[in-house]
Amino acid sequence: MSIMKAVAVDIDGTITDKNRKICVNAIKALRKSEDKGCPIILVTGNVLCAAKMVAVMIGTSGGIVSENGGFIQTRKQNLVLGNIEKCKPAYKFLKSKYNIEKTEFSDIRMSEIAIKRTIDVEVVKKTLADFDVEIYDTQFAIHITDPEVNKGSSLKIVANDMGIDISEILAIGDSENDLEFLEVAGLKVAVANADKELKDVADYITKAPYGDGAAEAINKFIL
Amino acid sequence: MSIMKAVAVDIDGTITDKNRKICVNAIKALRKSEDKGCPIILVTGNVLCAAKMVAVMIGTSGGIVSENGGFIQTRKQNLVLGNIEKCKPAYKFLKSKYNIEKTEFSDIRMSEIAIKRTIDVEVVKKTLADFDVEIYDTQFAIHITDPEVNKGSSLKIVANDMGIDISEILAIGDSENDLEFLEVAGLKVAVANADKELKDVADYITKAPYGDGAAEAINKFIL
Repeated sequence: MSIMKAVAVDIDGTITDKNRKICVNAIKALRKSEDKGCPIILVTGNVLCAAKMVAVMIGTSGGIVSENGGFIQTRKQNLVLGNIEKCKPAYKFLKSKYNIEKTEFSDIRMSEIAIKRTIDVEVVKKTLADFDVEIYDTQFAIHITDPEVNKGSSLKIVANDMGIDISEILAIGDSENDLEFLEVAGLKVAVANADKELKDVADYITKAPYGDGAAEAINKFIL
Repeated sequence: MSIMKAVAVDIDGTITDKNRKICVNAIKALRKSEDKGCPIILVTGNVLCAAKMVAVMIGTSGGIVSENGGFIQTRKQNLVLGNIEKCKPAYKFLKSKYNIEKTEFSDIRMSEIAIKRTIDVEVVKKTLADFDVEIYDTQFAIHITDPEVNKGSSLKIVANDMGIDISEILAIGDSENDLEFLEVAGLKVAVANADKELKDVADYITKAPYGDGAAEAINKFIL
C-alpha cells in the first residue's frame, strides 16, 4: 500500500448518520487529516452550494465533486461537466407517467436532475431505459444524470488540479453512486452500512457504520 | 425570566470559530436543545441553500432566516421578503467607483447583494448613503440589503409560523447584523467575541467566545 496523499469522501450516509446529521467523530478525524497535511475532497450527489457549506464547516481544502460528478470545484476553477439537457427529456417523460417531484434547490442544480424518493428506483430505470441518462439511488434522492460523467471521472480532474495521482487517494463511500470513485482510487473503503456492490469492490469494510466508519478508516489509514 | 421555547442563533462567528469552522461543542448543545423539545432557528446572512445544509447537518427543526431576513423558510413555507431590485442600482453605483466583487453563489441570493470584504464598510456606507439600502458588515461579507427587512422582523414571522411568541425565544449572535433579532427576542445573548453594540443590548455576555459561547448560553438557559 502506497502512502495516501488525500482522502475523497462521500457526505450523506458516509460522514453523517442515517438522517443526514453530521457525525462529530467524522468531523474530528477529517480535521486531523487536514492538520496532518492530507487534504479532504468532498464527493457528493448534492448541489455545490450545499457541499461548499459542508467544506467550510468542516474545514476541508481538497476541492469538491458535486452533483455526482456533474459540477466540480477544484483548487483552480469551477467546472460544469454534466449536460443537463440530456436529463430534461428523461425527466419530462417520467413526469408524464408518474407523480414525481424534484428535490429542494433543483433550480441551482447545474448538470443533472434529482427527484424525491417517492417512486421505486427500478421503475425509474425501466421507464427511462431508452434515454441517454444514468439513474442513481443515493438513498436520499434519485438522480437522473448525464452518463458521460460520474464521481470517479470527476475526482480524477480534482486530483489532477491538486497535483495528486488518483492512486494516492483513499476513497470512502456508502452508496451505489460512490462505486465509480471507489473504483478509480488507490485505496477503497466502504462503511459498514454500505450497499453490497460497494463492499464487493472495497479493500476494507469498516466495523462501524456511517460517520463513525469514516472516522475509523481515516484513523486506520491516515492518522 | 420566562421559559424559553426556542433558540434563534446566528451561524458564522456564533456557532463556528473565526474561520467559519463549526464548533463541535455548539453542535452538541444545539442537538441537546432539539432533543429537549426546544427547537433551533438558524438566523444568518448566508444564502438559504447553505443555511439549509447547516440545518440538516446539525439537525435543527425550527426554520431558517437567511440573507439577513430577506429569504426565510418557516415550517410552512419559503418566503422571499427582501426586494433585490432596491439593491441592484446601489451595487451598480458602487461597482462603478470601486473594484468590488460579489461573494460566491451570488446568483442564488434572492433578496440582497453580498460583496467580498475587499473594501472598507464605511466607504460603502458613505458611497451608498443616498440609496434606499441597509449596509451590514458581518465580518465575513458586506451586505447591501433592503432596509424593509432584517433578521428581527423575519424571525417574528418564523416564530409565528411555529406558534411561538418572540418573547419566548433565546437569541444568540455576534455581529452588527444580529442586533435586530436580539432586540426583538425575549432573552438576548452576545458571545464573547461579539461587536460592542451587540454586547450593549445583551442580557448576558458569554465567558467563552464563538461556538463555545453559544454552547455556554444554551447550557445555561435551556438545558
